[in-house]
Amino acid sequence: MSSKKSGSHGIPIVSDIGEKKLIKRLLSMSRTLQPYSPFFDENYFKSLSDDAALLDIGDEYLVITSDLLLESSHFPTEMSSFQKGMKVVTANVSDLAAMGAEPIGFVLSLGLPHDLPLEKFDEIMAGVLEACNTHKIGLMGGDTNQSEELILSGTCLGVVGKKKVLMKEGAAPGDVVAVTGPLGVAAAGFEFLFAPPPIKETLKKIINPSTIKIVVRHALEPRAKLKEGMILAKKGLATSATDITDGLASEIGELIEASPYNVGITLFETMIPLIPEVEEVASALDRNPLDFALYYGEDFELLLTIREDLYEKFKDDLGLIKVGTVTSSGKMEIFDKEGNTNILMKEGYDSFK
Amino acid sequence: MSSKKSGSHGIPIVSDIGEKKLIKRLLSMSRTLQPYSPFFDENYFKSLSDDAALLDIGDEYLVITSDLLLESSHFPTEMSSFQKGMKVVTANVSDLAAMGAEPIGFVLSLGLPHDLPLEKFDEIMAGVLEACNTHKIGLMGGDTNQSEELILSGTCLGVVGKKKVLMKEGAAPGDVVAVTGPLGVAAAGFEFLFAPPPIKETLKKIINPSTIKIVVRHALEPRAKLKEGMILAKKGLATSATDITDGLASEIGELIEASPYNVGITLFETMIPLIPEVEEVASALDRNPLDFALYYGEDFELLLTIREDLYEKFKDDLGLIKVGTVTSSGKMEIFDKEGNTNILMKEGYDSFK
Repeated sequence: MSSKKSGSHGIPIVSDIGEKKLIKRLLSMSRTLQPYSPFFDENYFKSLSDDAALLDIGDEYLVITSDLLLESSHFPTEMSSFQKGMKVVTANVSDLAAMGAEPIGFVLSLGLPHDLPLEKFDEIMAGVLEACNTHKIGLMGGDTNQSEELILSGTCLGVVGKKKVLMKEGAAPGDVVAVTGPLGVAAAGFEFLFAPPPIKETLKKIINPSTIKIVVRHALEPRAKLKEGMILAKKGLATSATDITDGLASEIGELIEASPYNVGITLFETMIPLIPEVEEVASALDRNPLDFALYYGEDFELLLTIREDLYEKFKDDLGLIKVGTVTSSGKMEIFDKEGNTNILMKEGYDSFK
Repeated sequence: MSSKKSGSHGIPIVSDIGEKKLIKRLLSMSRTLQPYSPFFDENYFKSLSDDAALLDIGDEYLVITSDLLLESSHFPTEMSSFQKGMKVVTANVSDLAAMGAEPIGFVLSLGLPHDLPLEKFDEIMAGVLEACNTHKIGLMGGDTNQSEELILSGTCLGVVGKKKVLMKEGAAPGDVVAVTGPLGVAAAGFEFLFAPPPIKETLKKIINPSTIKIVVRHALEPRAKLKEGMILAKKGLATSATDITDGLASEIGELIEASPYNVGITLFETMIPLIPEVEEVASALDRNPLDFALYYGEDFELLLTIREDLYEKFKDDLGLIKVGTVTSSGKMEIFDKEGNTNILMKEGYDSFK
């Protein structure tokens, strides 16, 4: 990927401002133009900057999310066609999980290079159908086009009770900040996969083969935490939630920004769940494993805030891991191993950077 | 676009089988795996091969369609960024029009080359919002990614009364086959736009400038026949319907295939609405203008079948134009100027061919 910045004649280009700001630009342009619709309520407008859009269809919300995956940005060469098909479903289902919604259907638009072997097409579709089946969702339709690179564009629909929906807003001071699983594992996998060939050869010699297998599998076959999201919503446990697609720091920033109050979040470095495999890969690359958790995405774990008593009661059932606490500081901070509190930067994976 | 066929080692590739068959392959793979859902009824399964998917949400169907537009396949160089933005909305809204649905929301996923000027991004979004506003639909969210070529992937949601929905199936012998406007106009525009530079220069000299303006505008700024589709559905007029995206012959074939009975359709060559501008462009290119109507798409007019008495009653209000009649022959035929009946081939625009 190119790191080139700004147009050749100083004209602002999209990579100058990056992904999240582009989406905000798009939404702020659209907000003034939203027409009247009986399907829109106050949560519809909030959902525009959340993980999925909410339409008021009576007793429940219809939840709609869309995710586009591209060969050049999202698929390492080691990823099989089957895994590519699974991933477009997982990425979309994860957004529904973040809203606590039950998925009901999936629509797929494909861009296919004209010389793609039919066998690969069948493998991609087998992966899509396998993942749809895992989550008990129907594949409702599709569209195919000839394209330069492989494109998998998915849209997933779900439903969630109106009073049960998990939003990014809602974190309250005193809440526990928790995640549903270890972080940085997919990052470690991608760092290995994207290493230049000579470095990769060295890594293969110094890293335990079972470690490589574990981290690579996390990168290539991520799983959406759908069950956890649905339980959190049904039992009304979380005060706010999102899925970790751009790294913990970036998503923590999203929860703070979404709150109408001046909340802050303090993370505790020692609590951030790093598995030994992530530490092993980071060490081999002479990197800080914490950075893999904070600034890389693709783990598809859920990040949530939850009242402390409920956390204690449900942490074992749901596999929740406390990583921090909601404060009233308005700041994003990290309490490090040495006992110092540092300001945390809100940066995450950005396909334009 | 390349016309290369088959893999270099005789391996079947996607362009060997083409777009419609790829979609059918995808749907037949998925049909056996559809899970149980309270949102699925018999029309859900039929809708999988229709213009949009139907979910049973109570009194109405929720209608979902998805369309992916690519710089390399769908956007001639002459198309402005604003027009590209409009088109992704129009292509999706046209599928809802074909089901008689009222659109309620639009979701956009964008693939953007990293060096796309921010100004172009804003123009694309202005086009998207303009078209959303025309159809009174909210832009419910989006996703941006860095990609090699410009990609606009849209999903549109709508609603339609359960007993009112327009499907591809339902044509009955004796019905009038009608369209909502002239055909082949966008085709004439694209033939001019895609002509090699020396030929284009010649065309500019021999074709009336106002003709070029009209056909090019149809190609670059198509309009969805939403109002017509909604009226046809609300008043229960059409027995079957679809939108013409791949040419009249291809869509006629779709209506015949969708019918559970052995219906056929006979078109009358002299009734096919060709405007003088289409004839002028075809003549300048030494082409048969009828081919523009039969075998090119992108007109976004609706094709429908309707009982003869209702056709007579509503044709003026809705601007319907009779082009043929539904038979019980099981065949797709055309009655030509000389009074001969010929078998019509079901071919249409295919991005892989």
